[in-house]
This record gives sequence, C-alpha cells and structure tokens, in this order.
Amino acid sequence: MPDRISLPHGADAVPARSWWGWGDPGQALPDAECAELAALVPGAAGTALPVPSIASLELPPVRVSAPRTLAHLVSGAPAVRAGHTYGKAFRDVVRALRGDLAAAPDLVAFPREERDVVDLLDWASGADVAVIPYGAGSSVVGGVEYRAGSHSGVLSMDLSGMGRVLEIDRVSRSARIQAGALGPVLEAQLRPHGLTLRHFPQSFAFSTLGGWLATRAGGHYATLHTHIDDLTAALRVVTPAGVSESLRLPGSGAGPSPDRLFLGSEGTLGIITEAWMRLQDRPAHKASASVVFDRFPAAVDAVRAIAQSGLHPANCRLLDPGEAALSGVAGGGGSVLVLGVESAHRPVDGRLAELVALARDHGGSPAESAPAAGDSAAETWRSAFLRMPYVRDGLARMSVISETFETACTWDRFPELYEAVHRDVGAAVRAATGAEPIINCRFTHVYPDGPAPYFTVIAPGRRGSEVSMWDAVKAAAMRTLGEHRATVTHHHAVGRDHRPGYDRQRPEPFALALRAAKQALDPAGILNPGVLFDPAG
Amino acid sequence: MPDRISLPHGADAVPARSWWGWGDPGQALPDAECAELAALVPGAAGTALPVPSIASLELPPVRVSAPRTLAHLVSGAPAVRAGHTYGKAFRDVVRALRGDLAAAPDLVAFPREERDVVDLLDWASGADVAVIPYGAGSSVVGGVEYRAGSHSGVLSMDLSGMGRVLEIDRVSRSARIQAGALGPVLEAQLRPHGLTLRHFPQSFAFSTLGGWLATRAGGHYATLHTHIDDLTAALRVVTPAGVSESLRLPGSGAGPSPDRLFLGSEGTLGIITEAWMRLQDRPAHKASASVVFDRFPAAVDAVRAIAQSGLHPANCRLLDPGEAALSGVAGGGGSVLVLGVESAHRPVDGRLAELVALARDHGGSPAESAPAAGDSAAETWRSAFLRMPYVRDGLARMSVISETFETACTWDRFPELYEAVHRDVGAAVRAATGAEPIINCRFTHVYPDGPAPYFTVIAPGRRGSEVSMWDAVKAAAMRTLGEHRATVTHHHAVGRDHRPGYDRQRPEPFALALRAAKQALDPAGILNPGVLFDPAG
Repeated sequence: MPDRISLPHGADAVPARSWWGWGDPGQALPDAECAELAALVPGAAGTALPVPSIASLELPPVRVSAPRTLAHLVSGAPAVRAGHTYGKAFRDVVRALRGDLAAAPDLVAFPREERDVVDLLDWASGADVAVIPYGAGSSVVGGVEYRAGSHSGVLSMDLSGMGRVLEIDRVSRSARIQAGALGPVLEAQLRPHGLTLRHFPQSFAFSTLGGWLATRAGGHYATLHTHIDDLTAALRVVTPAGVSESLRLPGSGAGPSPDRLFLGSEGTLGIITEAWMRLQDRPAHKASASVVFDRFPAAVDAVRAIAQSGLHPANCRLLDPGEAALSGVAGGGGSVLVLGVESAHRPVDGRLAELVALARDHGGSPAESAPAAGDSAAETWRSAFLRMPYVRDGLARMSVISETFETACTWDRFPELYEAVHRDVGAAVRAATGAEPIINCRFTHVYPDGPAPYFTVIAPGRRGSEVSMWDAVKAAAMRTLGEHRATVTHHHAVGRDHRPGYDRQRPEPFALALRAAKQALDPAGILNPGVLFDPAG
Repeated sequence: MPDRISLPHGADAVPARSWWGWGDPGQALPDAECAELAALVPGAAGTALPVPSIASLELPPVRVSAPRTLAHLVSGAPAVRAGHTYGKAFRDVVRALRGDLAAAPDLVAFPREERDVVDLLDWASGADVAVIPYGAGSSVVGGVEYRAGSHSGVLSMDLSGMGRVLEIDRVSRSARIQAGALGPVLEAQLRPHGLTLRHFPQSFAFSTLGGWLATRAGGHYATLHTHIDDLTAALRVVTPAGVSESLRLPGSGAGPSPDRLFLGSEGTLGIITEAWMRLQDRPAHKASASVVFDRFPAAVDAVRAIAQSGLHPANCRLLDPGEAALSGVAGGGGSVLVLGVESAHRPVDGRLAELVALARDHGGSPAESAPAAGDSAAETWRSAFLRMPYVRDGLARMSVISETFETACTWDRFPELYEAVHRDVGAAVRAATGAEPIINCRFTHVYPDGPAPYFTVIAPGRRGSEVSMWDAVKAAAMRTLGEHRATVTHHHAVGRDHRPGYDRQRPEPFALALRAAKQALDPAGILNPGVLFDPAG
C-alpha cells in the first residue's frame, strides 16, 4: 500500500532542559520577576532562593556499574544524575534548589533501540538495580524519583533517544511511534503528512509519548478523543518476563484489553517502547468565544448542559472567579467560560453559535467573539497557561507554596466538593502556614457525567519548611477528594505522592490482581518501586 | 438532590425462552418454513430435525447438592438444567436438537441479591464446584457451557432475578443497575425518566447488562459511544477474594483502570452484580437513507471517508452484494450502505445530507431517502436483522451449516482480509462439506482506523456431521483472521470456541499477568473454567 511510509531517522533533537525546574532554562523567571510575583502574595519571602550551580552539588557515590557491553549506554555524570533525580512537583523543585540530591540515581541509561532496553532490564533484574523509566521527567507526583527502597542501585532509564515516528499508515490514519518522542518531535514528523496526534497536555514540549501512555495523560481538548487511552491502537512493552506486543486494532472484544493494563501502569509492569497511535486530520476550521457568568453555579450548569449536548467542543474551560482574575481574562468576580470548536472538514461557526446559545440560556453573557481568529480571552488564557509552570517555579523560589491538584467527579457531587476544597483544604493551609490561601478552580475536561476540576492553591510558606507545608496541603487535598468520591487524579497520575489517596480508592480485589500481575511480569521487583505498589522485600 | 431516585422493586419479569434455540419459543420457524428456507440452499436436507420434548431428554445425574442455607436458591429440575446447558452457537443448537445434554450443569442457582452470590461462591470455592455465570445464555462462543474439566460439580449461576435499576442520578445522567437486567427490562425502567442506555446488541431482548459487561458487547450503533466499555462508569464484582467496587467517575488517571480488567473477563475473575452506567437522553430526531454502490471497494472507501469525517453516524451498515441480496434490501449485485443519524437535541437532516454527499462523492447512488420516517431499506434490514437468529435455527434444523464470525481490522488490511475469507474459508467449507458456500459480509461498526466486518457463511451440511463441519469452518475462520491481523472477535467474545485464535492473539506477557490475576482472585479455579484460560489442575 503506497500510503504506508517508512520514515528516516532524525528529527529527534532533544531541547535543553532545566535540571532543577520546569522546561527551558532560558525561560526561568529572573530574580527580580520572582520578587514582583511574590509581592502579590501577602506574607511571601522578600528574596529568591538562589539556583545552585551544578558544580556545587553534592551527589551520593555511585554504587553500581553497568556491564561492559552496556557501558556505552549509561552515564554517571553529576549533571546527568542531578537532572534525573526528581520530577517537577513543587516539592521536587524546592529540594533541587536546596541542593538535596540524596535520591539521585546511580546511573542514567540512554537506550537507542528496544534491544538496549531488554538488555538493560536483564542486567538490572539480575543485579537488584531499581529501574525508573524516564521520558522527559515532567511528573508532578514523584513518578520518576527513587524513594525509600533497599535496592543495590538505581538506574534512571531515559527513553529520549528513541523518538522516531517509525511508520505511517495513511489509510488507517495511524502511526507507529517510539515512546521517547517528545510532543513537538512527534508532531513535526506527522505534520508533513497532514496528520496530528492532537494530544497537547500542558507539558507537551517537555513530555513524551511513553510518559503519556504510562500515566494515562489527558490532552488539551475538553471533550471526546482527548485521553491518550482512546488514541492508542496497540502497545509494545518490554517487561522482565518478555516483550508484549498487542495487535493493532480499531476495536476488539477478545478478553480484557491488554493495552488497558499497561496504560496507567506508570512503569511498574514494563517499559513501553512503541505504540501504534490513532491520528487525526489537521484541523482547518477553528473558532472560539468566551462567555462571562455572574454566578459560578450558573456557569457550572451551563457547562453541564454543553457536556451533555453532543456538541463536543474542543475547548470548554470554565474558570471560577479567582482563576479568571489570576490569569487576567476577567476581573470583577465573574466566571469565564472559554469555548472552542475545531474541525478538519467543515465550518464550525454554527456549532459555536449553538454552544454560546446554550451558555446564554444559563445566564451567560458572551464577552466577545471572533470566530475567524480566536478571541482574546482564549489567547490570554493560552499564554498564561503555558507560562504557569515557570511562574510556579518563580513562586517556589520565593518560598510561596503552590499546589495544583486535579480530579474528576460526577456532576451531582461537584457543588459539595467545590465547597469542601475551599473549606477543608483552606483550613489545612491555614493550619500549616498560618496564612490565608488563594484557592482557584478551573475545569480542564468535561464529560456528560461530570467535570474534571483542577484546583490551584497558593499561600506564603516559611523558608525551610516549604516541603512539609506542601505535603500537608497535598494530604488535605487527597483526603478531601476521597471524602467526596472524586478521583485522586484525573491526569497527573499516582506516582509516589498520590499513593495514600490511591490506596484508599483502589478496590482491594483489584489491588490483589494488580500485585499478582506485577509479580508475574517483574518478579525481581525492580520496575519503578514505590509507584502504585509498595516496594517488595 | 431531588433528581436522585430510588426505584421500587419490579419490572423484572423474564420472558419465556427456548431451551434449545434462540429467544422466544413462539417465534421459532415451523417445519414447513424450515423446509422452504432450505430449498434456497442447494444440497440441503429435505426434512427438519425434530425438536425433542423435554420429557424425553436424558440428563446426567446430579453430583452435588447445595447446603441447606442455599437450597432455596438452586434448582436441579431437568428443564432448568437443559435450558442452562448451552449458549446459542450453531453447535449448541444442533447438540440440543440431538438431545445431547451430557454437559448439563448439576444445578442452576437463581440468586436474588448480592449476598446470595457471595454465599454461593463461598460454597462453590470450598466444594470444588465450577461456577458458570449466566445472564440469559445468548453466548455464541461456548461462554456458558462447562467443557472438559474435572470439577466435582457444576453450578450455572443465573442472574436474571437481579434485574432492577436501583438508582438514577438524573444530573449526571447515570444509573446503578443490577447485572441481571435484560435489555427491555432495563430500558423500561429508564424510559419514564427520558433516559436510555442506548445499547442495543442484536441479542438485546435475550441478554443482560452483566453479560454485555463481561463480554465487552458492541451495541447497535456504528460509531462513537456504542461499546458497553465506554458506557461504564463503575462496576461491582463479587470475586472469591472479596467484593470489588470501583469509584463511579467520569474519567480517571489513577493507575490502570479497574473496570477494564473486569470488562471482557467473561466470568473468569468474578461475577459482576451491579454497574453504574452512563445514560443518554432519548433521541428526538432521526433520519436515515441508503446508498447503492456498483463496486464494493468504492463502497468501502466511502465508508472509510465517513468514519474519518467526524460526522458520527448512528448507523453506517455496509452490506456487500451477497448480504444485500440475502436480506432483501437490494438485488442486482450492488452493495448497500444504510446510513442513520440521531440526536436528542437538534435536527439531523443536515448531517444526513453531508453523509449522503460523501457517499455520492465515492460513486454511490442514493437509493431513496425519507428523513422523517426512516427509509425502507433500513426497515427491511432491521426486521431481517432481528429475525436472523430464528432463521439460523431453522437452517440448523435442516442441517444447513451456518456460521457467523465478526472481527475488526485496520483499513489497510481489510481488502486482503475480505479476499482471504472468500478464498480460504471458502476452501475450508468446500473441503468439509463438499458444497459451495454462501459467504456474505457486512460492517457492523466503523472506526476512523478500521471497520468491524461481520461474515456469514452458509453451506449444506451432512446430517449427523453438522458439529464437526461447523468446527472446521470456525477453525478456518480463526486461522484466516489471525493471518490477516484481524481480531478473533470484535463483540462476540472468546468463550471456549474462540480459544485457539485468542491464545495466538493474546501477547504472552499479558497472558502471564492475567493468569496471575485469575489465581489471586479465584484461587480455587472455579470461575468459568476453560474460558480465556485452561482450567487449572
């Protein structure tokens, strides 16, 4: 079939990445800007924590060495180890700024092909070396950090050298892609074919396909096919017990889905090396609008009506009054609903008009609307959105506690959950910091049966106690979510930080089954110990 | 919340059901009609196999008895055991007609509440009694038949006494429903609330929610939310290791999905007793049209364009020339595409017009179109569709081999698969029966990345050898699907009949994980032994 294309090697350049904070080191906020930000948070520290030089870092000694046949794939260089010690949670950034790298991996491996992954796992299984699969390290849940285990050594397995689109099936609109492909890298390889994976998590530029798959990532789009789960047609996974390759299929009813066991397994059952992904034609028609509501509950009702309307907006981001003010799209206590529609095939203005009409029926006032070019609330929002992780790092340098937690619940439970977060998480922040927190909420995704609310909590912290304060906020968040039957995570994954909430949420018989599956696939217990399960032994 | 409604007991009357063949015994074809049908198949037998009287049946002796506390829940009556011996595959019907009931369960249990299921499993686990979960027995893959095991006894667990909608959450458009609810029974309880599960497999009237969940059923609709998997918000499952209850959520990224392990587990990991299901508003707008194509490949291209268009037709059923002729919707060698659109909220004529235009772009000729009332090809098709199982039984009584097998593959593989089925399965039928088969195909579901083709194979059989001939056809079908990387089943499930194809398709590491999960949840190995796994011991 002529539409099946084999792609040449290339296009897999990995961009420079901050070793201590988010993304591009060139975009980190300068000290003066950190201080300006902190001035908006009454009680915040007056000076920024300095960023230590890599030369000044003290790393624990390397305890293991790779066999000669694999030595060319691994590095024990301090800068490399430092950059692979943590993910990008607030507590990670603060610990890195303090130069606390006690958890650094002994070695970092850079496999170039699947065979390397197999060989590295073989060695690690025999040598009692824990293996932490690493895409681009964007985890905000302690997913890539070795913690409190007793292995002989720790290897971070960085897949970024495996970033190619290997094959495109144009007829079936699918591609076989290596797991180490960063978002921009894979999109660049699909674009010439008029195709897109159309999966844009906030971390897009600094996260990989394999990471999205392992953590069940949610994309940017609010409805329909936005979860990586639904875009997956087949997986190749290297486990210590062998390579698992599922059949690429549009649908199947042959037993429980093999892919769904590995999706969300967070590197504990195997290392995803390739996937066949379902692609889409690139959108040719786009329109967006924003609607302001005086009352937040009315806005929630409007969003519910939209989610149940079958109109499938690409964007349906509701910002509560605090969030709208913070991101600069509206002041005055209103809630803002940013709506977007897209299509590769037909004009979308009619659909946008229907969506806006539904919002108006529920008391919304269209703020402005510019279907051809997008509207300015949407653009203000988008640029604020992409800048958020850098802002969070700037706040961390000012010892301002910043925690984001995201969830999903059914519509009937949302009003009480929203109240409880303000009341109970608010109380926990006050108890931990002595200060009044900012608590904001937006919806990242909406479903016919419920929203995915994303909460931001900000409060001035005490210098030196940032991590324990953040831990107290996180614990309160998990407790509140559990009490209101909301999931401990909608798309950030479980990692190590969400374990208490996850352990309460996971049905016990399912936990038994999953532990048994883990034992069968990873009998030596080397794969990402502490994530999803307690480390064995 | 006022929209949360507790429903009274009731509406769970179970209709009369044929013990040997499909569905309503009153709709079985009379002898004369069987003979008329067979006259259309050159070489078919001239007289119908008689239907044995229940009184004449010889059943094996009952080997086990339930403890006194559970005795009121079980029956060992011959008619009850006979009706629970088989599913409804061709080979099941033929064996029943021959009075071969050697595989009859010792006892049939009718639990009335979840506690009964727990108690029955406790007893069975301790007494080495195999338990076959039974919804309404519509399996066509040997899913409810005890076969070749060495247990001390066999209990068929009939859930039909647990058929209530327990709770409706109108705000989140969801309902908590007992697993034993038959299709019409659950829809009758949802209708007064303006809601529908909108899941209509061909077996709808004689299958249950629990059966749909356990086998990953496909609904009637061609695109979007038609699979039971996607309609499931939470499951309650009784396993020998405890009751698993997942949190009802619109979405979650907390580890691998617990529900997706049980969906498709076919009664081997536990017995589903309840589920929270996502509902939809009842459609208020419907339109359909049919389009005729001279060339089948052009019709396939049209359907692919439609599946990738984002128009989400409710119906997109492509009948190849043989299927179109057989079901009476068109003669003359044309292929027929039946299109349907539905919406609860807005007119659908524009969407239908776009779909028809796409079909026309690919060389189709609209046959007729009556958007207000449906069109006659669609209605002819629908009534033929619902009558098909009765026709199949009539053919079985005339010793005409009739096998339907369904699959899914990517678009790039379909043309070769279609040819291979005609060539290789055709050759297998000729070798087994000495006759020229009829081989037809339709698409039941379509996805952006591929279709779900459904093949029908009909050939005159030799009286007395029907089962072995059917087995030969089934084996050839599985082999051909596997060779062309098509799934062994898209929505009929694996059961016992599809094991050879499933075992080849299932990735070995996933098989290891699944067996370990089975061992953890069902250590005594009593749950549906032989399905998905070899029986232990």
